[in-house]
Amino acid sequence: MVVLGAGFAGLAAAQGLAGLGVDVLLLDRHNYHLFTPLLYQVASALLDPSQIAHPVRATVRRRRSLRVRVATVRRVDLDHRLVETDRGPVAYDHLVVATGSTTDDFGVAGVDAHAQPLKELPDALALRNHLLSQVESAQWETDATRRRTRLTVAVVGGGPTGIEYAGALAELLRLVLAREFGHLDQREMRVLLLEAGDHLLGAFAPPLQRYAVDQLRRRGVEVRLGTRVTAVEGGRVRLHDGSEIEAGTVVWVAGVRVSPLPGLTGAGDAAGARGAVPVTATLQLPGRPEVLVIGDGAAVVQDGRPLPMIAPVAIQEGRHATRVIAAQLRGEEPPAFRYTDKGIMATIGRHDAVVEVGRWRLRGFPAWVTWLLLHLMLIISFRNRLLVLINWAVNYLFYDRPVRLIVRAGPDRDREAVEGPGPRG
Amino acid sequence: MVVLGAGFAGLAAAQGLAGLGVDVLLLDRHNYHLFTPLLYQVASALLDPSQIAHPVRATVRRRRSLRVRVATVRRVDLDHRLVETDRGPVAYDHLVVATGSTTDDFGVAGVDAHAQPLKELPDALALRNHLLSQVESAQWETDATRRRTRLTVAVVGGGPTGIEYAGALAELLRLVLAREFGHLDQREMRVLLLEAGDHLLGAFAPPLQRYAVDQLRRRGVEVRLGTRVTAVEGGRVRLHDGSEIEAGTVVWVAGVRVSPLPGLTGAGDAAGARGAVPVTATLQLPGRPEVLVIGDGAAVVQDGRPLPMIAPVAIQEGRHATRVIAAQLRGEEPPAFRYTDKGIMATIGRHDAVVEVGRWRLRGFPAWVTWLLLHLMLIISFRNRLLVLINWAVNYLFYDRPVRLIVRAGPDRDREAVEGPGPRG
Repeated sequence: MVVLGAGFAGLAAAQGLAGLGVDVLLLDRHNYHLFTPLLYQVASALLDPSQIAHPVRATVRRRRSLRVRVATVRRVDLDHRLVETDRGPVAYDHLVVATGSTTDDFGVAGVDAHAQPLKELPDALALRNHLLSQVESAQWETDATRRRTRLTVAVVGGGPTGIEYAGALAELLRLVLAREFGHLDQREMRVLLLEAGDHLLGAFAPPLQRYAVDQLRRRGVEVRLGTRVTAVEGGRVRLHDGSEIEAGTVVWVAGVRVSPLPGLTGAGDAAGARGAVPVTATLQLPGRPEVLVIGDGAAVVQDGRPLPMIAPVAIQEGRHATRVIAAQLRGEEPPAFRYTDKGIMATIGRHDAVVEVGRWRLRGFPAWVTWLLLHLMLIISFRNRLLVLINWAVNYLFYDRPVRLIVRAGPDRDREAVEGPGPRG
Repeated sequence: MVVLGAGFAGLAAAQGLAGLGVDVLLLDRHNYHLFTPLLYQVASALLDPSQIAHPVRATVRRRRSLRVRVATVRRVDLDHRLVETDRGPVAYDHLVVATGSTTDDFGVAGVDAHAQPLKELPDALALRNHLLSQVESAQWETDATRRRTRLTVAVVGGGPTGIEYAGALAELLRLVLAREFGHLDQREMRVLLLEAGDHLLGAFAPPLQRYAVDQLRRRGVEVRLGTRVTAVEGGRVRLHDGSEIEAGTVVWVAGVRVSPLPGLTGAGDAAGARGAVPVTATLQLPGRPEVLVIGDGAAVVQDGRPLPMIAPVAIQEGRHATRVIAAQLRGEEPPAFRYTDKGIMATIGRHDAVVEVGRWRLRGFPAWVTWLLLHLMLIISFRNRLLVLINWAVNYLFYDRPVRLIVRAGPDRDREAVEGPGPRG
């Protein structure tokens, strides 16, 4: 069997399937599994990439029946049961598609060219480099307007990623960098959080939404609700009311849509909201019982509402994929999927978060401790837990962000220099 | 006063000068100080960049009279006492030049285009990405020759960096990756160490040199002495005897030369060995008492021999720079510099190193413990010490290299988008 994608859904499926004793091939573009909930902490110079990105092979080291390969999937040929990759075709008997989602620009002009996304690990590193470079450049600016622009960050999108990054950024600028850039006026450092809707954190209860706005404002984030961005340009965002904001850094976290996988849906118009692929109640592709779609890419409706594109849904769907295929292998009817809501949470900053589990709501310090312990628990590997804990402690106690590096890998010379006709398809 | 370069020499000088209470401006291309002795551990997937690269501003946080700026130095104008940078001109009264060294290709064709250097942090990340990509690509190769080529690494240069990287690489391939790439034949993974001279580790005593060769061979490194590389091509190195070695990764650590700084020497021909700038016994530029040259860039002869381009020399010269300028400020005669040799060491791998302090020689386990403790001690910041120790322990106990990530920062969109005439000169 072949699993496409080593995100939360794909990894859970691959590990479960390997546990059945069948041969599994797991394909991903990257050689690592990314713990996306903490991605914003890489972008805000708090964590190193290796603390949230774990080599897939290391994760599945003990599972002998599970092979891992790095490849970019280009197309699925359902009729011939083939996956076409940049490394050549791969045949499957059962296929689990977990290729995830990507940043959605919602058709706004200039997002791709001028805004920094925050969805993948390279995005987080690019954003860290960009932001720190702007602060360094600001040191040389003699013109006050340009200096202020360089020190202004506009975060577009008031979902969990937006508020967590805006909160972390306000702390980075005010508590860490301001101590070291003594010659800069702190008031010139601005973080704006722009949200088109009337409230932040759409999935949370209204009291927690209001709490998040208040707390972010108290921490120096300029929260602007009902503010729709109509275009992003170099050093500037344009708003729906015709006004504009000069910002040297524009972070686009307004939302995601499904990564398209050609061949998966017969016609493009069959796709659901944000490009999600309609599946049966058992997560199978209609008419193709050998193909399952799970994670962000699957359009699953439960109690009349589509399930959100979040990690807990992906993990539960990944585990369910194993149950479906196990039933198929036994010749039984596959079970229907049902998501068990374990709650949602988002952190705002030092000592502060919001947590909602059913009707149970937490905020402030107890929510923050809950968030902290849960995320520590969920991080893969004991080493990473220890390292993340140390970095968090350093940040907490010494107001230091240890990963304030402007660095990118040098050119990979001759990556494909080995000659001869390759196995590429 | 202005210090150029935040390496070992420049940082020591800047900190010393700031301690005198005078205003110091420290310029560097990067926003971090790099602990180069452990750079090969980033390239071999053992350490994260932030564990050996420390933000310069964090290092000098408490020194109020020391300002740090990121800029690329283009030229020195000695007559007008100006440093020309990509951010505009900077005037100085006293200037300390510590701009370091760069990889020397010794005129060998193809080094720049086809070999991976290992001198700066981006080099180490590029090498890690390249090497891991080759191993991943090898998984897809059906042709045995091409697969072997992808799995062959040729390390050129038998100095400390060469032997430390070759040793670390042999362990990465044989002890870590071989466990995870079960379908690859271990014997196809080869590490070659090519040295033009008759022995490795030129600066060490002959018994330690021979010991290093034996131990590397025992660990699976193919050490070839008296082997001069005449050209590097895509996937291949050519040797002096006309033969060639197919290698998907070529690492060039054959030596370094001084980074040229235009304007520093009146005529290019005034430079000494490997481009070093001749200085007085007090490390001053002849005829320019307000300019000191320290670190790799200074040609200092002691007891008839030029001092080597190593960190201990750089640090001692950096400290001496403060003494010279302090004497000048008091109107006294500046003292002459004298290097105190504290010894040299290099690690070969698990349980193994060579240490030489005067006539005192250590090898094997006690040398390894000495190397380990000393390097832990020298790393900047308590956090980094702790993190490095954890990574070393994980590697030692679980045969795991936690930073096996193929990742590079995404594009920095609009880094210089802020409009208007900049302060650039």
